[in-house]
Parts: sequence; C-alpha cells; structure tokens
Amino acid sequence: MRTDYCGNINASHIGQTVTLFGWVNKRRDLGGVIFLDLRDREGIVQVVYDPDIEDVFATANSLRNEFCVKLTGLVRARPDSQVNQDMRTGEIEILGKTLEILNKSAALPLDWNQENSEEQRLKYRYLDLRRPVMTERLLFRSKVTGAVRRFLEDDGFLDIETPILTKATPEGARDYLVPSRTHKGQFFALPQSPQLFKQLLMMSGMDKYYQIVKCFRDEDLRADRQPEFTQIDIETTFLDAEGVMAITERMIRGLFQQMLDVDLGEFPRMSYAQAMQDYGSDKPDLRNPLKIIDVADILANVEFKVFAGPANDPKGRVACLCVPGGASLSRKQIDGYADYAGIYGAKGLAWMKVNDLAAGPEGVQSPIAKFLSPEIITELLMRTGAQTGDILLFGSDTYNVVTESLGALRLKVGNDLSLNQGEWRPLWVVDFPMFEEVDGQFHALHHPFTAPRDMTPEELAANPATALSNAYDMVLNGCELGGGSVRIHQQDMQATVFDILGITKEEAQSKFGFLLEALQYGTPPHAGLAFGLDRLVMLMTGASSIRDVMAFPKTTTAACPLTNAPGVANSEQLTELAITTVKKTEE
Amino acid sequence: MRTDYCGNINASHIGQTVTLFGWVNKRRDLGGVIFLDLRDREGIVQVVYDPDIEDVFATANSLRNEFCVKLTGLVRARPDSQVNQDMRTGEIEILGKTLEILNKSAALPLDWNQENSEEQRLKYRYLDLRRPVMTERLLFRSKVTGAVRRFLEDDGFLDIETPILTKATPEGARDYLVPSRTHKGQFFALPQSPQLFKQLLMMSGMDKYYQIVKCFRDEDLRADRQPEFTQIDIETTFLDAEGVMAITERMIRGLFQQMLDVDLGEFPRMSYAQAMQDYGSDKPDLRNPLKIIDVADILANVEFKVFAGPANDPKGRVACLCVPGGASLSRKQIDGYADYAGIYGAKGLAWMKVNDLAAGPEGVQSPIAKFLSPEIITELLMRTGAQTGDILLFGSDTYNVVTESLGALRLKVGNDLSLNQGEWRPLWVVDFPMFEEVDGQFHALHHPFTAPRDMTPEELAANPATALSNAYDMVLNGCELGGGSVRIHQQDMQATVFDILGITKEEAQSKFGFLLEALQYGTPPHAGLAFGLDRLVMLMTGASSIRDVMAFPKTTTAACPLTNAPGVANSEQLTELAITTVKKTEE
Repeated sequence: MRTDYCGNINASHIGQTVTLFGWVNKRRDLGGVIFLDLRDREGIVQVVYDPDIEDVFATANSLRNEFCVKLTGLVRARPDSQVNQDMRTGEIEILGKTLEILNKSAALPLDWNQENSEEQRLKYRYLDLRRPVMTERLLFRSKVTGAVRRFLEDDGFLDIETPILTKATPEGARDYLVPSRTHKGQFFALPQSPQLFKQLLMMSGMDKYYQIVKCFRDEDLRADRQPEFTQIDIETTFLDAEGVMAITERMIRGLFQQMLDVDLGEFPRMSYAQAMQDYGSDKPDLRNPLKIIDVADILANVEFKVFAGPANDPKGRVACLCVPGGASLSRKQIDGYADYAGIYGAKGLAWMKVNDLAAGPEGVQSPIAKFLSPEIITELLMRTGAQTGDILLFGSDTYNVVTESLGALRLKVGNDLSLNQGEWRPLWVVDFPMFEEVDGQFHALHHPFTAPRDMTPEELAANPATALSNAYDMVLNGCELGGGSVRIHQQDMQATVFDILGITKEEAQSKFGFLLEALQYGTPPHAGLAFGLDRLVMLMTGASSIRDVMAFPKTTTAACPLTNAPGVANSEQLTELAITTVKKTEE
Repeated sequence: MRTDYCGNINASHIGQTVTLFGWVNKRRDLGGVIFLDLRDREGIVQVVYDPDIEDVFATANSLRNEFCVKLTGLVRARPDSQVNQDMRTGEIEILGKTLEILNKSAALPLDWNQENSEEQRLKYRYLDLRRPVMTERLLFRSKVTGAVRRFLEDDGFLDIETPILTKATPEGARDYLVPSRTHKGQFFALPQSPQLFKQLLMMSGMDKYYQIVKCFRDEDLRADRQPEFTQIDIETTFLDAEGVMAITERMIRGLFQQMLDVDLGEFPRMSYAQAMQDYGSDKPDLRNPLKIIDVADILANVEFKVFAGPANDPKGRVACLCVPGGASLSRKQIDGYADYAGIYGAKGLAWMKVNDLAAGPEGVQSPIAKFLSPEIITELLMRTGAQTGDILLFGSDTYNVVTESLGALRLKVGNDLSLNQGEWRPLWVVDFPMFEEVDGQFHALHHPFTAPRDMTPEELAANPATALSNAYDMVLNGCELGGGSVRIHQQDMQATVFDILGITKEEAQSKFGFLLEALQYGTPPHAGLAFGLDRLVMLMTGASSIRDVMAFPKTTTAACPLTNAPGVANSEQLTELAITTVKKTEE
C-alpha cells in the first residue's frame, strides 16, 4: 500500500521509509547514479538509485518516461546545494530501495515540451490530462464542486435530479433530439436547462433545490461553447431577488476565499441601463477603467455631419473613450481599431491625440480637428478629463452601434495597452428590461418565466417596452458567471407574458399547458439562479478555454477525436427507432 | 423571513413569535375556532385562529386545502389532552396572529386519501411530491448523495464529469442515439455507464475518481427499470479487489449507520458457485433461511424416473427446499407454486409434507411417497432436517432449471410464509466465472474489461470456460446494490479477452482501438465499482419502486405524462439533423 502521494512527501518524512506509486516523469543518469522524477496527481518527487543493489539499479536503468512503477525508499534531506524551494518536495529526495515496473510505456505521441494541436490533445486526452497543469485543473474543479455542494447542503438545499430525457424547450438555442423506440416517430430532447423542472420542484414544496447538472445546446460552437456544459442550478421558495443574491454572493465569496484566498468584498450593483451606457455591455469588465463618455451635447451644433447628425437624432449617440497613453498608437494601430469597431457596425473611427494638454486646442492632433472650433475641442478635453499622451476615440451612429462598438473597443484597447486594474472585479447587473423588441415583436430577455419588477399583469400588458424584470446577473471580469430571476408564480401573469410574446393560447397550452395548470394549485413565490460551472472554474484557474477545465471536451465541430464520436449507427438500430438518415443532396 | 420550517417548531420555541410559510394541509372549524395543519417540506404544525382579530379570522376562514400562506403566531404548549406524541410538533400549537394568502389553490386532481393511478401521479408529479412520504424520500435521497460525496471526497476521491454525448458502447442493452447536426448521418449515444471514461481517467493518473452520474438504457421497462438511472460510479488506481471492497463496504456501512442508525456489521463473502448452489441466485437474499438441499445421491437409484434420470445425468440436478410450516399449504397453493416454478422451466413440483416426524416414513404425505422406499424417505428427512409441519418441495431437471426454479421458489415461499429473518443482510458475492458459454460462444459475465483472477493471458486462453474473474458484487436483501471488478491494464490480456469473446481484430480496433492504444502508455493497475443509487435509496426508504425515489420518473412505456415527452419534432429540426421518421408499416 502507498504511504502517501509523491507530491506530499516533505521534510517531515525524513528518515522514514515510504512506498510510492507513480509515473516516471524524467530519468537522468548522472555519473552512474539514476535520478527519477516520480509523478502522481499530487506532484513530483525525486528518487535516487545508487548502483549498490545491482538488480534494482538495473531496473532503474531500464526505466523510460511514463513507465508506471511502485517503489520503496528512504526519505532524506537533499544536499543544501540541491534544495529546490519552488517544489513542494524540493527539500528532500528518496533513496530508492526497491522498484517494480507495473506497466511499461511506449514513447508518447504528445510532446509535453511544446504546444500540441487541439486535435492531438483531445485524441490523447488521457495523456494530455497527465500534464501537471491539466491534472491540477481537474483537481481544482473537483474541489470547487465539493465546496459548492457543502455550502448549499449546509444551507438546507436539496440535491434533486431532474430528467435528461425530456421535452423540447423554448429557449432559443437548438435542442439535441433523441428518438424514442417505444413511441416511434417521437423524440425526447436533452435539456438546455432544468428550468421548468426546478420550478415544478418549488411547486412540490422542496423549498430549496440545487443540482450540479449537465445541460445541452446544439449551437454552432465558439471558443467558449461546448455541446454539453455544467450548471450549478439553484432555486428557492419564499425568497425574493435580494434573498437569492445574498445567498449566492455569499457562496461565491466563500468559494474564492477558500480556494484562492481572495476576498471579493461586497459586490456592487449596476443597472442594465447604466452598464450599457457606461460600458457598452451587460457584463462590464470593471478591471478596465475606461468608460464611454457621452459628448453629443458638445457636438450637436458642429457643421461636421458625421457628429451633428447622430447628435441631433433621438436614436443616435455620439460618445468617446479617453485612452490613457493612447497618443503613442501608430496610424496602423488606429486603423486596426477602426476595423475592429467596424465588426460592430461602426462606419469609421474618429480620433484625437492629446499631444500637449497645456497647449490647449493647439496641442491636439486629429484628422477631424479642422471641423471643430477651439472652444469645442476645449470642451471635449474637459469633459473627458484627457491628459497629455491620451487619445480620444469617437463613435457617432445609432445608439446601438456606438454603444456596442465602443463597448467592444474598450475591452480590446484595455487589453492591448494593459490598462486593467485589480485581479477580480465582481458585480451584479440588475433591472434588465423584460423584453427586447425586434421588428415589432417582443422577445423575453431572460426567459418567459421571469417575473416583472413591481407590476400587475395589467400594468405589464400596458407597458411591455419599458417594463423591467426581476432578474439579476452575476458578472466577474467581464464574464457572466450566472444569471437568474424571480419567477412568475401566478397564472394570470404567466398568461399575460405569453400574450406579449405573441404565444397563442393554443401554443401556450401545447407547450406549457402543464405549467399553466400547475400555477393554479398554490404555487409559492420562487426565484433562482444558475451558474456556469465550466466558466467559473476557467476564470478561477486562469485557463484560457472551458475545454481546459473539462475532462473530455468536444472539438469545435462537436466531435470527440478520442472515441470517434459521433459515429455511424447500424441499420438495425435505425429500423428499431423508425428513422432513416437522409443523404446529403446537392444544394 | 421565515423563522424556521413548520416541522421544526417544538417545545423549545414556546413563548416565541414565529413566521412560517407553507401549505394548508387541512383546515377545520371547531366551534368557531379555525385549526390549520400547516405543511412544509420538514413537516406539519398546528395553527389556531381565534375570532378575536376579525380580518385575520376571516382570511383563515377562507382558506382551502393547498393554499400557500405566510403567517406569524405565538408558539404555546398544547393542552395535555391534545398532545400528540407521534408528531414532532405534537407538543405545541401556534396561536395565529397574522395571515397572508400567497397563492390560492383549486381543488387538487389527486386525492391523497386514496391510491391514485401511476399515470395520474406522474401527470401531477408536483402535487404527488407534496405528499409527506414522497417529500421525505427526496429529502432522504439528497442526504444519501451528500453523505456519499463527503465520504468519498474526504477519502481523496475526485468528482470528475464524463460525457453524456458519447460513442455507442458494447454493453448488451440498447443505446439511446442522438443525431449529430454538424456530422450529418452520424449519431452520439448516451452512455450506459462511464466505464471506458473512468478507465481513461485512471490512465490519466487521477488516482481516485467518483461521480454520481446519470446512465441510460433503452430497454423494455420493468417495475424496477427506468430509461435513465443514477450510478455512484467509483474507480481507483493501485488498489486490488480487497482494497476497493474495503472502501466501498466502509462507505455503505457508514451510510446505514448515519442515515438509519443501523450497524450492518462486516459483510460475509460468498462465491458465485456457492450462491448458485445454495440459493439459486447470484444475489441471494440471506434474510430468507431456506437453502437448496441436494438429494441426487439419495435418489440416484430409485425407480421413479423423474428423480433417477436427472440424478444420474452429469448435467442434471435433484434438490429440494425444506419449508418450515409448509405442511399447512393447501393443494391449490402447492399447485400455484408448481405453476410459478414452471416459469423457470420446471415441469412439475414434487412435494412431501411431514405431518408427523416421530412416525418416520409413515408420517409423511406425498403423491410420490409410493415411489420411494421407507429408507429413502428417512434419508431425505435426515438430510433436510425436516420437522413436523414442514414441507419438502423438489426440483429434478437440468442443473440450471432446478437451480433457477428452486431459487425463485425459495424467495416466493419465504415471502408468502413470512420466513424472512433480520432486517438487513448484506454480503459480497465473488469468484464469478469470466465468461458464460451460450451455443459455443463465450460472453463476458461482467464486461469485456474485467480482469481474470490470477491468470496469465496464455492460461486464460487455454481455460476460458473455467476462468474466474476478479469481480465482486455487493448484495443486500436479494438486491444487487453494486458491482465492480479489477480491470485489465495490459494490452496482451485485453487482446486475449477480445479474442475469446469472438471480437475480431478489426472489430476490436474500430470499437476499442483507443482503449487498446491507451493500454500501451503506462496504464496503471486499476479497479472500481458502481452502485445503483436509485435502488439503494429505494431499499433504505422501504419504497416499493425506484420510481418512488426519483423526482420525475418515466412510465413503464418510457413516457412522461407531465410534460408529454417524447413529442413530435418539427420538420425543420429533422431536416437540419438530416433524418426522417419512417411511417409504421403493416407487419
């Protein structure tokens, strides 16, 4: 039996004989003495084999990287010159006494000393996960889920499983379908979230529910999307928004304290409107000090139509970012930012370098300076608080284009110029609109079960465009960690929302009839929230992709190079399921 | 805010004003005083409304069953005559001071005072779960998973998630398929277990893995099967069978101690061969004292061919059960048992009642007595240890028919005559055969990754029919709680097993190529086990079906009457997935 993990052996074990299991991380022959780095999930320890015990030495000499071995040895202090303070085991080494090869290893198809392609890493995931950085991330993730569970269970939350084989949901993104064998021609859907089931559990009186649960979305994959992902799903009865926010903020603060020794402090609140106005985003990264500064009033009367037009249009916006140190940007860099803003619909990027603030309007450099009077330029400098060496980057277009393009530019410039301050900047975004209007049609900004804030069904029906929802998002460093809302618990309110969304009575009945029916049997007020576990762990570990905190992720085309999933089904199976595949036709 | 749950209010709160939320379980008007039973997930408390506060009393008077309310009141001792020691809250009652109706309720479609159909219970599952017995089961289940997680995490196990969208597995039962949109014509499969992934995690050096995880089998459903079910899945590195059995036995013993205050004691071991011989089952219910007693040697030379034939056939078996008190069975009851044995292939059921043991062979009553000499009858009575009032039930046929039919009869008779002794009788069944042979073809008794016990690949290839596997099942009260094995960790052994199973090199390569490849990179010895969580909780709560310990189970035709899943998919979705449904043809 193992005495301890390799990574846990330290000076307190000096003089003890230990038994270890692990993998040969490195083998070196230094002047007739074999040095092994033996690795297990907790770390690496150095083992030394002298030639005294002939057969053991011969075995040690035959070892190659990634051989799996069992050994015993005596823990001793390293000579002072060899102490490595960067390793947890760096004060000691083990004088090997016995050695048994449990399994040999061929040369690995992955070279850990260089970048391997994503495809190779996923094909040999079991080897990629042996890399200490990857092992540590999975260990960290396991500790996070354990800590979250203990927090919630100690707080009275019940872990209740909801079905994976369920009915298609109405949440925008695409469902994965599963053909039914017993009900031929019909399909289950994999859940995009357990939303309706957790609401039903509140109707059941379970009071406080949580689940760390797989959810599924058949979307086109981007860097941070996976076909299956994991939610920390929470729902409570008799708590309002403040109650849910208090519990979940306490949970996340506790988690950062426990796992990273970081005190996140109390989370500030920001309205959706303010977040969009100042940061051009509903998930502002507050580490970035830049804000979008409105200047329409200053530019409303200039002759330069590019500014004057939107400045006088009620649906327009004229605003700018004041970027510290940005005066050193090259013309090419500025052109690059203009292209970037173009992705968000901006037709150009006016700029103004403040080369010498003391020189006033004379001290600025800008292609548009000629269109602006010295007074206007002075006003711009005062409004933005620009300093010598800064650059102003202007947006002038519709409200949405300016807000989105400057919001995106803010993040890009902030990263490029290393403007971010502080490591962790959480906040709550609240007071979302209930609906967004696209082409005269209202859509739910969260989902159709979200309650409005302080409104009767009649008031909501009369003012859908301005209604605020009782929803809240937890945002950290520009990422949405989680989002939730108070849910509708009364039938007339739910019917009103379906009506505003243009869902007919028949459609509502066929899709959500069971929910509407359930609302009539003493449904309690309830509210909840769901966190994206993968993203949370990614942020906490500093990984650059959620793939790096999942054991077996899919590629960006939703495939698994390790198992070769998906694969072709045999025709018997398809016959049983009463489906056939359609050959791809020329289009 | 709530002071506490209804079910938690007790004598220690007397004199305090409490705020409670809950549902009206019952409302009675007794002489102008309203008595409410207020219910939440933790229990029921009695609230009394006097007519003094007029408007509050009017509200109390308007309450109906299942209204959801918030109230405050003063906790006071009940008059001695009304103390109910059977209720946790039975010493106190609450004098209501305020009352707010949070939501009304229509009359429930389920009548809790009578049996409701399974279909109705599932359609209104959110109401069925309000029944205290159902609520308690879900609370119990949540506590079980919490306790299991804490045990395993404290023991160094990592909670690691494995994919739900994966490749078809070779484990007998049918896979649920999920058409891929990005890889048209191809399918994911939902996992029947995370077997291969947990083995890959051991190859990754994760050392100790666990997961409480959904698994899927598209089988024809029986009373104790569901399309999706939950496993406590465990895998360890560098532990042998003893090591895994020790940890998991400790876990289950700890769980029973903690949840039920039951000491299961040390689990006895029994070989598969002995279990089949004595109990006719690989999961013997040891509460039942009956054993199958072999009597072929006694009956080998009788003229009665029904006995003599199988007694002299190397593949035959002649055996009996000695049922205490069975002499009182009627002819009709015995015929019933004969029919029951017939389900398992028995062509009849010979019997012998011991009406008076002291009278020797004269004291028995049996249609077959006339074929047997007094000496033979005496030998049978001595071998079986029969007492006056017992009955002997005989099986005589092939080994399998006798073993299975008497094994099944043993359980049925034991239940019918209430012979079971003791509440909890766990054991380990070990030394399973590696393979079972059907029509000259070997099949894996567990799965094809199970290691043989103490054999080289060459020895295994030479003796597949007699090889024992290094597998172990934990059995409790006749149910398999969990099963596991030491896994094959060497490529030549895995290839040998595939070969014995008749899996060609090409097939092995296409299905398990990644596993065979992985085995060459220093795969460690590893072993594991998986428990069926649903069945475990069912046994522990005394529920009669796993459906009663799941929040949202499916019907026996794998449908959900609540959400109406599965449902018809729209044609756009199917086009995107490049599949079509096949109309049912006349057959």
